[in-house]
Amino acid sequence: MYQHHPLIPGFLFNGLACGIKKNGEKDLGLIFSERPAVAAGVFTQNWVKAAPVILTQKKLEKKKCQAVLVNSGNANACTGKKGMDDARKLVSEVAGLLKIPSELVAIASTGIIGEFLPIRKMISQLPPLCRGMGSEKIVEFAQAIMTTDTKEKIIYRQKDIKGKKIIIAGIAKGSGMINPALATMLGFILTNAAIKPTSLLALLKEVDEVTFNRITVDGETSTNDMVLMLANGMAENQPFTKSSSEQTGFKGMLFEVMEELALKILQDGEGVTKVIEIRVEKARNKEEANTIARSIANSPLVKTSFFGEEANWGRIMAAAGKTKYKIIFDKVDLFINQIPIVQKGVILGSKNEKKVQKEMTKKSISITLTLHQGNQKASIFTTDLSTDYVRINAGYKS
Amino acid sequence: MYQHHPLIPGFLFNGLACGIKKNGEKDLGLIFSERPAVAAGVFTQNWVKAAPVILTQKKLEKKKCQAVLVNSGNANACTGKKGMDDARKLVSEVAGLLKIPSELVAIASTGIIGEFLPIRKMISQLPPLCRGMGSEKIVEFAQAIMTTDTKEKIIYRQKDIKGKKIIIAGIAKGSGMINPALATMLGFILTNAAIKPTSLLALLKEVDEVTFNRITVDGETSTNDMVLMLANGMAENQPFTKSSSEQTGFKGMLFEVMEELALKILQDGEGVTKVIEIRVEKARNKEEANTIARSIANSPLVKTSFFGEEANWGRIMAAAGKTKYKIIFDKVDLFINQIPIVQKGVILGSKNEKKVQKEMTKKSISITLTLHQGNQKASIFTTDLSTDYVRINAGYKS
Repeated sequence: MYQHHPLIPGFLFNGLACGIKKNGEKDLGLIFSERPAVAAGVFTQNWVKAAPVILTQKKLEKKKCQAVLVNSGNANACTGKKGMDDARKLVSEVAGLLKIPSELVAIASTGIIGEFLPIRKMISQLPPLCRGMGSEKIVEFAQAIMTTDTKEKIIYRQKDIKGKKIIIAGIAKGSGMINPALATMLGFILTNAAIKPTSLLALLKEVDEVTFNRITVDGETSTNDMVLMLANGMAENQPFTKSSSEQTGFKGMLFEVMEELALKILQDGEGVTKVIEIRVEKARNKEEANTIARSIANSPLVKTSFFGEEANWGRIMAAAGKTKYKIIFDKVDLFINQIPIVQKGVILGSKNEKKVQKEMTKKSISITLTLHQGNQKASIFTTDLSTDYVRINAGYKS
Repeated sequence: MYQHHPLIPGFLFNGLACGIKKNGEKDLGLIFSERPAVAAGVFTQNWVKAAPVILTQKKLEKKKCQAVLVNSGNANACTGKKGMDDARKLVSEVAGLLKIPSELVAIASTGIIGEFLPIRKMISQLPPLCRGMGSEKIVEFAQAIMTTDTKEKIIYRQKDIKGKKIIIAGIAKGSGMINPALATMLGFILTNAAIKPTSLLALLKEVDEVTFNRITVDGETSTNDMVLMLANGMAENQPFTKSSSEQTGFKGMLFEVMEELALKILQDGEGVTKVIEIRVEKARNKEEANTIARSIANSPLVKTSFFGEEANWGRIMAAAGKTKYKIIFDKVDLFINQIPIVQKGVILGSKNEKKVQKEMTKKSISITLTLHQGNQKASIFTTDLSTDYVRINAGYKS
């Protein structure tokens, strides 16, 4: 399915180094749609929002977008009025060069918090950035938005829907545990499909909830997280209508693109040696299942035991029990990679323990906690917590 | 103030090795009061509670206690009906040996979760444990309750209150980040003062709230946490009455003992290189101040940056912003060891940054975040997150 250089009709890309990153790597990227696209976005829930987040969130209210400028290496967060002025200035320069209205240009940043953007350097590189755009330059763009990601993240799907070739491409950068900034997750989902503006936002939110919103590395929320989706309609399909089979098919593609991107982000997290799925089942309600799953997923003691490849199920039980949601622990069953280890709150024999111990050496592990107090479930993906995570985030001390 | 072998009138102690710990260290301890003492306890909020927690919590409803049996090396948690039977059996054996009713014997455990107690070994050592008790053996007791603590933790205060020599001794074991069990905090506060049963519980809860409840190492809640307070009345004082100057004086002593124990626990946490106080000021309400302070205190990115001795204030701002409580970040001021670093959400000059950078090398650091949206405040003590924390909790892997 995956192609190295997918082309998405009507979308052009570029990425280059403008000097924000001291190591000379690419740090400025651009997406351009030949037609104004229907657009939707989901943004960080953090109360401390970076200037580009505030600005782009405002622009997206009109549900239209034609270009997205992204820089890495500097988050333009906690930069006050000057930070907002800088973001506006960049948007207006790009709009001028692309000869489109400023309202149609979105902006995103990722990198160090609390430093002003090197605005002159950036502006001087905007003309070559715009001039050099090409439909094949998605990789250059994907590289330009990386921070400590070790590789670019692009996922591509295509499918015939009612005789039209519909394409979705997703590009993301991950929670690379970057020092000294916060890890930021950026995602850009591009499609040639035609979708109604309100449907697009609903669809993005729905799929985001079960993909990007189900991954956690350390329970942190960046000041700069943003997922933008642009649908330029070049496929000339009839816009999907709600709950039609066409939209269902499209949603399936979107889910695959976003879930694969989310898992790529986890796998590429700095210091990550394992990806762990935490499933909580038979809870009284979704919120309960979700809260307990997150409590396990963000527990440092659970995460370090996975790094150590130890089946420390006591820590899982304790993390499950520490939320406000009551669990009756002598009803609870626990499975690791489908192997039962705890039944009705009590450890099973050493035979099961040995089997589970073997599973702990795998790269991908699932935990299922069955509460037996209702019929709702939730699932969260997390990673282990390694000495490398600490080393990287402590600025390589130790 | 601190004495190496404080005596508390009417209290006897002992500690010995019964073979729970494989390294032959002390693992069984006893506190005995010559008179039945007025007693109160605070217990883990985790829904997954160890057998001794459930049993002692029930006993304490009668607000009386004369003996406390404590073992380390095994938490007796997630052990089902057998675990509860074991705890009851131990209590009844101790009661028989000490010739007191079973109702007056409390029990606490700390160590590995999910293994049954080696009950025979333990019972065989109860006679020498009871026979060998002495008023000077508080250190033996303090050693017997340790897990990965590197030293015993005893705090002692005395004061003349209305002509009576009132003594409080506190013994605790810490959140030593023990592998493979969860870290458990146990505290035992003993006094010769006479206090009314209801006053004692109110007092313990009040002081606990501002001492033990203000420390966090990793946001985990053990299945076994317990703080017990016994007041045997041997000082023959008139029981303190509420809001009397006597009770205020006593509360002051109690606060000092419990705060010092709490800080000792933090300082002795495995892998800890720094103790950090997080103060949140000018919040709209206590809950808001407390939630934001805890969000900062439990942020892996904040904690790793302290380990790395980097003044990474952006992480502090982001951790403050990720709770449900809205903060208006362009109003927020941030101080590190009283030096201003962020004013109205924007970083101050590099001169301040350099000063703050110097403070980061200290062992004890305070962060003050002033929200300017109300008049309430909260303060939480935390530690850094080091590579050693991960190493120890991953079973020394890496």
